[in-house]
Amino acid sequence: MNGSRLGITMGCPVGIGPEIILKAFYRKKDFIENSIVIGDLNILNETNKQLGLKLEITPIEDTNHFVPGKINILPVTNLNINELTLGKPDKTTGEASYRYIRKAIDLALSQEISAIVTAPISKIGLKYAGIDFPGHTEILAHFSNTKKYAMMLAGKKLKVVLVTIHCALKDVPNLISKEKIVELLELINQSFKQDLGIKSPRIAVCGLNPHAGEDAMFGREEIDIIKPAIEKAKEKGIKAQGPFPPDTIFYRAVKGEFDVVLCQYHDQGLIPLKLLHFRDGVNVTLGLPFIRTSVDHGTAYDISGKNLADPTSLIEAIYMARNMAQNRLKR
Amino acid sequence: MNGSRLGITMGCPVGIGPEIILKAFYRKKDFIENSIVIGDLNILNETNKQLGLKLEITPIEDTNHFVPGKINILPVTNLNINELTLGKPDKTTGEASYRYIRKAIDLALSQEISAIVTAPISKIGLKYAGIDFPGHTEILAHFSNTKKYAMMLAGKKLKVVLVTIHCALKDVPNLISKEKIVELLELINQSFKQDLGIKSPRIAVCGLNPHAGEDAMFGREEIDIIKPAIEKAKEKGIKAQGPFPPDTIFYRAVKGEFDVVLCQYHDQGLIPLKLLHFRDGVNVTLGLPFIRTSVDHGTAYDISGKNLADPTSLIEAIYMARNMAQNRLKR
Repeated sequence: MNGSRLGITMGCPVGIGPEIILKAFYRKKDFIENSIVIGDLNILNETNKQLGLKLEITPIEDTNHFVPGKINILPVTNLNINELTLGKPDKTTGEASYRYIRKAIDLALSQEISAIVTAPISKIGLKYAGIDFPGHTEILAHFSNTKKYAMMLAGKKLKVVLVTIHCALKDVPNLISKEKIVELLELINQSFKQDLGIKSPRIAVCGLNPHAGEDAMFGREEIDIIKPAIEKAKEKGIKAQGPFPPDTIFYRAVKGEFDVVLCQYHDQGLIPLKLLHFRDGVNVTLGLPFIRTSVDHGTAYDISGKNLADPTSLIEAIYMARNMAQNRLKR
Repeated sequence: MNGSRLGITMGCPVGIGPEIILKAFYRKKDFIENSIVIGDLNILNETNKQLGLKLEITPIEDTNHFVPGKINILPVTNLNINELTLGKPDKTTGEASYRYIRKAIDLALSQEISAIVTAPISKIGLKYAGIDFPGHTEILAHFSNTKKYAMMLAGKKLKVVLVTIHCALKDVPNLISKEKIVELLELINQSFKQDLGIKSPRIAVCGLNPHAGEDAMFGREEIDIIKPAIEKAKEKGIKAQGPFPPDTIFYRAVKGEFDVVLCQYHDQGLIPLKLLHFRDGVNVTLGLPFIRTSVDHGTAYDISGKNLADPTSLIEAIYMARNMAQNRLKR
């Protein structure tokens, strides 16, 4: 029974992924028993040697042949380390990082693993390999045939979900809509119940404008879009509240009034999240048929191979995936 | 010599101003020796009685007749408490709160007081009295003939200045300009040197867009407006840096890399500020010919007279005004 095992994708072979994975296992030995790395054995062995960690790594043929007491790796590629340069992504590394994700999706869909935890890949690597996805999330959604999904950034103190993500600030007011907000509130409600063990999640919804518009003195989006969305969600039995003035709602959420804050744009959510969880923030994709968590940082090519990478975010991502998988099994 | 005395304006007589002023004196007895309240004796006496604080309050004719050991009040109005209702501003309270500020400005310009600390007033009160100013800052600027000024929100961990303040988010991109940013950087530089004792203030400038636009992928304002403004300021010898991705710069500032962060819009600055300084944030007006600090909250009419008001922000505002006045005197 592999149902409670996590698959950790190695990410870009020349980024910090291999380093933080081995450091995470080194710091948290119990991770070894319920995780499988999906990646490249040569890279992991070399990283193990370079870091002097002396971890025992064993390749396995499939998830049925899990070897207790060792770091299990399912080798998807067989890279020649002499042909790669740390910190320099190319066609090979882009394709490799893509294949780890594809393999993880297959294993998750066939329930051989109960969750996917992803180490960082780079858009530029995918591009070199001619793979036309902007990032992890879109690949995961596409191959699991998921239409409605959302990114949550999570830490112990604060969890945020974003209505709009990577767009210019000037485009935000046109990109938010009642339908999108209702859809996200449903996703959050469903995911928190199913995977976070919260029966009736309390969701705070941010306004878009200062003071949430203050009765349309500074913008009408609260009245025209956000408030109707919250009303609609409430009709569906979702405990959504707001729209709240953005400058005070995070303090209230941190104090325990809410389980999660739905934010209208990238920095509205990420400013407070990164302030509180700079090192230990976790990226969670809501709405997929399987559990997926991720580090909330990039490949950090500038420090690749320098033994400077911090595994904290990965460690937290593994903990969160494990907790979510346990909650889902309980149901 | 009254040069090192602060003038504390009482704010709206039916708001929480009188309560937090007396609570501040009660908690910090040393404030008594270097402060003069500019307000109404009847209101303060009644508040003193209601709160059971038993503070000694004495009216004075002018700043030359300061009485040591007691709370000195310069009575500007002689309100009939039976004609007022706590939490209900009217023509009388609006006019009164305006007159306290006007008196404080006179005293500051004639250097009878070295700083003004303001308790909260309400826009609605001013409106009832037919006074056409949106708030404190505009009154202070107008009667001190100040054209260039800025609002800083400050706490021990983080200080932020805003390029745009009370406007809809959609209007922000059109309201920021190179000239305005340069002007603010000059003001910040000057004020931090003069009043905060920092010889060469390190100013972080936020981008407007996520990831500070990431090479114009999400917006061009960083390239077209913000970066040229920073370059211009640098030419003037100002230690400005950026534009930085908004989601990580506050963490860096809090860690000590910068003295202050210039933010492009209200919530960009106030989200992190209120998260760290929910109770003890202080509002500082930069650019006036005198020092002015303020609480960073409103009149709180809903809790007026209920002995629920928290004087922390006022206490911090008094400390900050005192420190700033001392720094200015040193020069």
